[in-house]
Amino acid sequence: MMENIPMIAAVAGLAGLVVAFVLYQQVNKVKIDNEKVANITREIQDGAMAFLFAEYRVLAVFVVVVGLALTQLNDMDTAIAFFAGALASVVAGFSGMRAATSANGRTTMAAKNDGKAGALAVSYNGGAVMGLSVGGLGLLGISLVAYWLGAGDANPDLSAAAGFGMGASSIALFARVGGGIYTKAADVGADLVGKVEAGIPEDDPRNPGVIADNVGDNVGDVAGMGADIFESFVGSIIAAMIIASSDGFGGDGFTGASDYIMMPIMLGLIGYLASIVGVFSMFILKNGKDAAAALRNTTFIAALLFWIGGYLSLKDGSVAGFEYSGLGLIDVIPGVMHSVVLGSVVGIAIGLITEYYTGIEPVFGIKTKAIPHIGEMSKTGPATNAIAGLSVGMMSTFIPILLIAGGILGANYFGDAEYGLYCIAMAAMGMLATVGVTMTVDAYGPVADNAGGIAEMSGLGSDVRAITDELDSIGNTTAAVGKGFAIGSAALTALALFAAYTAAVGTENLDLTLTNPMVVIGLLVGGGLPFVVAAMTMTSVGKAAGDMVVEIRRQFAIMRESLSKDSSFEGNIEDATTWPEKVTVGDITYPDSQTCVDISTKAALREMVGPGVVAILAPVLVGLLLGPNALGGLLAGSLVTGVLMALFMANAGGAWDNAKKAIEQGHIEGAKKGDAAHEAAVIGDTIGDPFKDTSGPSLNILIKLMSIVAVVLAGTGQL
Amino acid sequence: MMENIPMIAAVAGLAGLVVAFVLYQQVNKVKIDNEKVANITREIQDGAMAFLFAEYRVLAVFVVVVGLALTQLNDMDTAIAFFAGALASVVAGFSGMRAATSANGRTTMAAKNDGKAGALAVSYNGGAVMGLSVGGLGLLGISLVAYWLGAGDANPDLSAAAGFGMGASSIALFARVGGGIYTKAADVGADLVGKVEAGIPEDDPRNPGVIADNVGDNVGDVAGMGADIFESFVGSIIAAMIIASSDGFGGDGFTGASDYIMMPIMLGLIGYLASIVGVFSMFILKNGKDAAAALRNTTFIAALLFWIGGYLSLKDGSVAGFEYSGLGLIDVIPGVMHSVVLGSVVGIAIGLITEYYTGIEPVFGIKTKAIPHIGEMSKTGPATNAIAGLSVGMMSTFIPILLIAGGILGANYFGDAEYGLYCIAMAAMGMLATVGVTMTVDAYGPVADNAGGIAEMSGLGSDVRAITDELDSIGNTTAAVGKGFAIGSAALTALALFAAYTAAVGTENLDLTLTNPMVVIGLLVGGGLPFVVAAMTMTSVGKAAGDMVVEIRRQFAIMRESLSKDSSFEGNIEDATTWPEKVTVGDITYPDSQTCVDISTKAALREMVGPGVVAILAPVLVGLLLGPNALGGLLAGSLVTGVLMALFMANAGGAWDNAKKAIEQGHIEGAKKGDAAHEAAVIGDTIGDPFKDTSGPSLNILIKLMSIVAVVLAGTGQL
Repeated sequence: MMENIPMIAAVAGLAGLVVAFVLYQQVNKVKIDNEKVANITREIQDGAMAFLFAEYRVLAVFVVVVGLALTQLNDMDTAIAFFAGALASVVAGFSGMRAATSANGRTTMAAKNDGKAGALAVSYNGGAVMGLSVGGLGLLGISLVAYWLGAGDANPDLSAAAGFGMGASSIALFARVGGGIYTKAADVGADLVGKVEAGIPEDDPRNPGVIADNVGDNVGDVAGMGADIFESFVGSIIAAMIIASSDGFGGDGFTGASDYIMMPIMLGLIGYLASIVGVFSMFILKNGKDAAAALRNTTFIAALLFWIGGYLSLKDGSVAGFEYSGLGLIDVIPGVMHSVVLGSVVGIAIGLITEYYTGIEPVFGIKTKAIPHIGEMSKTGPATNAIAGLSVGMMSTFIPILLIAGGILGANYFGDAEYGLYCIAMAAMGMLATVGVTMTVDAYGPVADNAGGIAEMSGLGSDVRAITDELDSIGNTTAAVGKGFAIGSAALTALALFAAYTAAVGTENLDLTLTNPMVVIGLLVGGGLPFVVAAMTMTSVGKAAGDMVVEIRRQFAIMRESLSKDSSFEGNIEDATTWPEKVTVGDITYPDSQTCVDISTKAALREMVGPGVVAILAPVLVGLLLGPNALGGLLAGSLVTGVLMALFMANAGGAWDNAKKAIEQGHIEGAKKGDAAHEAAVIGDTIGDPFKDTSGPSLNILIKLMSIVAVVLAGTGQL
Repeated sequence: MMENIPMIAAVAGLAGLVVAFVLYQQVNKVKIDNEKVANITREIQDGAMAFLFAEYRVLAVFVVVVGLALTQLNDMDTAIAFFAGALASVVAGFSGMRAATSANGRTTMAAKNDGKAGALAVSYNGGAVMGLSVGGLGLLGISLVAYWLGAGDANPDLSAAAGFGMGASSIALFARVGGGIYTKAADVGADLVGKVEAGIPEDDPRNPGVIADNVGDNVGDVAGMGADIFESFVGSIIAAMIIASSDGFGGDGFTGASDYIMMPIMLGLIGYLASIVGVFSMFILKNGKDAAAALRNTTFIAALLFWIGGYLSLKDGSVAGFEYSGLGLIDVIPGVMHSVVLGSVVGIAIGLITEYYTGIEPVFGIKTKAIPHIGEMSKTGPATNAIAGLSVGMMSTFIPILLIAGGILGANYFGDAEYGLYCIAMAAMGMLATVGVTMTVDAYGPVADNAGGIAEMSGLGSDVRAITDELDSIGNTTAAVGKGFAIGSAALTALALFAAYTAAVGTENLDLTLTNPMVVIGLLVGGGLPFVVAAMTMTSVGKAAGDMVVEIRRQFAIMRESLSKDSSFEGNIEDATTWPEKVTVGDITYPDSQTCVDISTKAALREMVGPGVVAILAPVLVGLLLGPNALGGLLAGSLVTGVLMALFMANAGGAWDNAKKAIEQGHIEGAKKGDAAHEAAVIGDTIGDPFKDTSGPSLNILIKLMSIVAVVLAGTGQL
């Protein structure tokens, strides 16, 4: 049985991809019988696809260069795995984006024609294509790599599997950074000129930057998030396999390592099957009254099935005093499954804490204080609003860090001395095994968000808008929880990869004590890298937004000039809201969204290179110049500050965003939309844009990518 | 000879204090023959003394509680040393403050009556009292403690010396946090109501918050900085002594440890004597044309003498190929002195990098890019200004971190394998031994700054103002360099204390490898603490500034009400610049500066408790609950993020401040004082206020205090 696990998992992965394809066709069956909706949907889809293709062209060069470098290290297996990992991530991202962009406008139509349940189903299924693609391709890819490297053999050499993770990580970094810059350049640029200078509403069709903004939501939150989670999923499996296959695992003379090597694939398989059940439960759940509960419940059903399946796959055992009969498919200590469950609980708890610090509504009846605080401080101006947001972000890091520390403590305890590091990797699996359904919920958010924007732009009725607004607001909560979850899983995955690195180098070749000056040097330099990458990405957003501002101003000037000469124009030339939706000058019709899409695309591609190079070169340089101990320190240092900075930036950004919304919704006494406090809150929200959607998420990947590069470097014997 | 070093050092420390007292009398000899200047000087001095006494009352309670706790651990020696350290820090802070506040107005008078050279001499001597007090009391205290504990004996137990450092650290944290909150509450509050709401200039005597603002400059930048540097100075000496006295130092059977134990005191002695020469060289240098060069040269003279003296105290040896004849007072490897010099060079380099990222003028001919970037981004509003400042701050961390890492690498190399950690502690000594003169220059800055403010408030002529402006602007540069220096020395001191902690616990009782989950847990939690303390202090400034805003608004309302009923008032009731300087209502004369001073004092005392408790309890709780390995991780984690966050916050704040000034001085094309870009830059400057003057500097001390608490905990055998 056990030796067949990779092939069974590969088949399940393939089957899941078929299911995803069926769901995609389901989404596409929804007819768009409104010309405006159809046009906007096509524009968004074309823009997104154009960006992806342009991005993939750049990545192809990068992948070939790095792949060739790997073959030069005489390590053909790692190079092949690297190509496979990159390809799998690209295919997953492409499929998911195709479905999500297709589902945007169709959710709007379903809201109009079929009501809430229909709209919920379409947006959920649109997300599910991404979820099932990420899970299915991850499982398929890693299973094939494991089978190919003989994971079931007695003493397998699995070091080349890290190449698969490195391929996935490389794509992820570029997707996150590029997507983040794309979406925020468009968002900030469109808002600064449209809302602030011209005084037209947020999703106004006259603003040439609005389509780029909508494309950006997909590019950043769907493709970027998908690549991030894909990487964590395969990274945690690879880390656990490498730890279990290392010399000395389980103590001297231990012969049961094979089961521990197979366990992560087994869990990936069970989690994926559970995810498919979870996704399909939406067919029934969608008809309930509470859409938020329906979304949550699909993930809970999957988690519960996954846990039960995980324990069942083991031998007989006991959980919290209850005896249970396992099927004995796999022979590992029960502490492994305890760690898995612990990991899930930690992930959920981090999500709830994120909601507490960034949400307007009470969490489990506990009133949030952060948003009212930022709201109050907005009354004394933008400076105090900024100070409040920054301090909320900093403070919000602490409980998640304690939870992650608690997860490590617990997993280490469950793993006894022998299996501690392995169980920490398994805790990461606990967060990630049901990726099929959690990623579905993540991708649902931007789909619902864009559905609302399309309804606005197409001038559909308020009843349609009410449905899309409700779905969108649920999406904001799932997004906050999803971000916390992504950071938590990235932390545990990076830690697992760090352990894999030490296993790959061989602990006998390392002196990673904190009194070794090389370790301290690595710790300091590694700690500094997240600050550097955060600074680079923030500056990039500023630059790219500047390009966008110039272009939108240029188009507005042309439209104004043309209208001022047009005797049939009856509106006020100084009031853009009275302008027509289209102005044709010569051959060109304004607003010319395509040019804005091109600007975001070019800026994203140009600016994503720097952080990518830093992330890959830093571990290579430190490893080769200062040795494996400094490299170990580097990974630990970047893990610590990377997680903290990611939490700080994501939560500060989320809190600023919602403080603005809280004022708009009348939650802050003495402040309302349009007054000075609101203006201050809008400024805070703009500061938070690159924080939460570009720099913060990039750090998740930075720490994983540097770790996996180190594992690969160690595996190729270069240290 | 060698065994007499502590007594000689103690005598030198005492002699230096006498010199400081003479300088204090010199300062006081300057006559204040202008009533307004006399009144303001008295108000500032009274306010500062009132704050110090109130602070010391709170600290007395704290010191007694902690001291009693130490005696309960049956460790009377540590408790005594703790009281001594706290007392020495308090006396140094008090003396320095007394002199600095006395020198404020006298510098103004000297500028009026004696010209630039006279003003420079008074402000420098005002700072020198602080510098020589910090150096003298540090040297005296630590020498007596060393003598008392028998540092010259064969196998001395010096663990109680850590108590002295802990006493100094405790005072330092409260002084830095309390002082930082005091100064920024007054600054932000006075600006928000005075400049923004009432439209009166910055140092206008009608603003009741201005005196509190001036007091704050002394409380934060003189007393806070002094306590910080005092702590680093004694901390680095203690760390080196504990490392040298630990079992196994120098290898099996090594008998020369005594010289290594005495070396830091020897260096402190030489550095202090060199500092006195440096300070007195100002008597000649003050007459030169370039005041900035004069200040710099006093530190260079001291550094050069210190290096020569250090090498001479050793046996014969060679530096860079040059043979030299030492006096052989002390027998240590020459690498120790090489490390000392390296430490100085690293400190200076960090200062220059700080200037590069936060200064307007080129550094060594290299044009700065950071300030023009922030200036440009101010043109698109406060949000982009904030993003630019934050990213400059983050980016500015990296070269200093590389320099610190380089210092560690070099010191470790100079120390060979046996003396590596010791030499790292010595590198910290290289930054700190000439503290007598570097602290003088640090304290000079706020004295010159306040002299300018007093000239403005007293309505003295533009020729006086030109002199004080020049001295003030030099002070801004020395302040930036001093802050970088303080962070660099804090990093090396904390690292040395970390090494002392491992020596105190005994390396055989520790497993500080990064693969130990307890170490990772400590690393994560420790990494999070600087974020927590930064968040707490930022929130405190916001709250305290809010209190100040309410009070200043109340006083303005009373003044307006009274003037509107006063038929003799001829100005415009809506234009505060036309109001008289004093308005008497009933028994009270407004502006009532005293009430504002009280508010800042109360807020500072209230808000400084939280961070202090966190800093002391965190290492105790982690050490006792999770053990010495987790505590080691905690120290390393807080060191990494503490240094990075301190650099980030200090430099972002400095850059925002100077970006505003750059616009005012016409350095940014297309922006000028009073336009929208300038308004955005003013907002950035206000965000930066708590960054650079409260939260950032507090982190320096946090990491040192937690380390020394850990050393004490280990020394009392509680781990």
